[in-house]
Amino acid sequence: MKLLRVGTAGAERPALLDAEGVLRDLTGIVDDIDGALLADDAALGRVRAAADAGELPALDATGLRIGPPLARIGKVVCIGLNYHDHARETGAEPPAEPVVFFKAADTVVGPYDTVLVPRGSVKTDWEVELAVVIGRTARYVADDEDPLAYVAGYAVAHDVSEREFQIERGGTWDKGKNCETFNPLGPWLVTADEVGDPQGLSLKLWVNGELKQDGTTAEQIFSVAEVVRYVSRFMVLYPGDVINTGTPAGVALGAPEPKPFLRAGDVVELEIGGLGRQRQELKDA
Amino acid sequence: MKLLRVGTAGAERPALLDAEGVLRDLTGIVDDIDGALLADDAALGRVRAAADAGELPALDATGLRIGPPLARIGKVVCIGLNYHDHARETGAEPPAEPVVFFKAADTVVGPYDTVLVPRGSVKTDWEVELAVVIGRTARYVADDEDPLAYVAGYAVAHDVSEREFQIERGGTWDKGKNCETFNPLGPWLVTADEVGDPQGLSLKLWVNGELKQDGTTAEQIFSVAEVVRYVSRFMVLYPGDVINTGTPAGVALGAPEPKPFLRAGDVVELEIGGLGRQRQELKDA
Repeated sequence: MKLLRVGTAGAERPALLDAEGVLRDLTGIVDDIDGALLADDAALGRVRAAADAGELPALDATGLRIGPPLARIGKVVCIGLNYHDHARETGAEPPAEPVVFFKAADTVVGPYDTVLVPRGSVKTDWEVELAVVIGRTARYVADDEDPLAYVAGYAVAHDVSEREFQIERGGTWDKGKNCETFNPLGPWLVTADEVGDPQGLSLKLWVNGELKQDGTTAEQIFSVAEVVRYVSRFMVLYPGDVINTGTPAGVALGAPEPKPFLRAGDVVELEIGGLGRQRQELKDA
Repeated sequence: MKLLRVGTAGAERPALLDAEGVLRDLTGIVDDIDGALLADDAALGRVRAAADAGELPALDATGLRIGPPLARIGKVVCIGLNYHDHARETGAEPPAEPVVFFKAADTVVGPYDTVLVPRGSVKTDWEVELAVVIGRTARYVADDEDPLAYVAGYAVAHDVSEREFQIERGGTWDKGKNCETFNPLGPWLVTADEVGDPQGLSLKLWVNGELKQDGTTAEQIFSVAEVVRYVSRFMVLYPGDVINTGTPAGVALGAPEPKPFLRAGDVVELEIGGLGRQRQELKDA
């Protein structure tokens, strides 16, 4: 299923995109798309049954904003340097174990919302990422367990990054990862059953129409399964938590000088195979 | 005012500790102690008026659990190496600008709840900290604005830290700061008017009755006001966000070998002048 949330920011309603590409209203079937729903197999079953039976009313998509496909996000755990080609372009050694940092849930916006270049920023950068949405509480996932059983679904994430704030201003990467609007998510949350193997997805990102990132999750240093297991040993993952699993090569930071960092007026488009497409215009904060 | 939340975990009710030390029920006056309340001067005024008029019913404190004094915490921003004496003991240069890292809100527990030593941990450490609770949205706080006007109140925070996970496992500090139960908060949220100047507060921490940390916020490298202004230029601070403002000297990491890291059975007590006292027993996760 492709689950989404439509309407003005803060007042989104739950919806479903059906196999014919028609937007269907989930109001009355579920309260919202959130961790509580994703942890509730019976409720998800009701959504699926209503969709299969053709009982869901169509929504007029004209002019309808698409919000982030997940409400009440707990935490956004991010994995750094998780693609062989991206580690090479930044001059970093491939990490021996996953690099973990955080984005606050309040940085999450819809897939077509404006992204703000922070005041004083000269190094705002793009990163297309596969976002993993947790559906079951994952705590010390054992070696013989399947970590993917804790995953409810997947979405496109844009891990917008300010490189000076991240790298040159002291402290940890979080300082350059948590600016306002820095995590467009969506358009859809695609349930795990529909995605299948998460290690064969193509990821693409364009800036002003020019293809900048063209990767595949097959290049991930640590697979989605390995990441979920690993992170669960340092913190508890709850339904409604998100993991941004890293970006492939092709970011501005990895380009020759003068590096083409983002400025107001730029347009970024992102796409992951089967998970849909985002488009953001940059404006000054 | 001293605001708190009492009852079983996940089902706490709002309460107030009055000037005589009597616990008063706020049920019916406010829904909960959260960012929405702290941003609502009228609602806070009603609480104050009801308390002053002696209209709040007393609660029997016998056997009543005290939860964290804040519900629906957005994000927990943490400042590292923010005391001159602590920077010295860890061998670090005092930072030129605040070091920022994150704890997830789901690490927050009550002030007397159990703290879990993570599986595989041999370097679990303590840190008493002044927590700042945000009451108004702070976004690019200007040089001529008073950053303390964005602060709703203060509380004791225990920034429990796993030093191997934090420092020796690759990536950023977040990996050692987000284990389950790693942020006891409370007992009270003391409103800013009652605290006054946040730069003259004593902080103390004992392990098994032995005084380990004995500091003062006067030793902070970056004051609460400077921290709020600084952080607001990298991310938006919302009502219900928390900033842990760093710890003074005396942590296990700063002790001579063999460093006295925490183990199951240890008891940690923390106190900040005017903000109350915490006590946690350590158990294995």
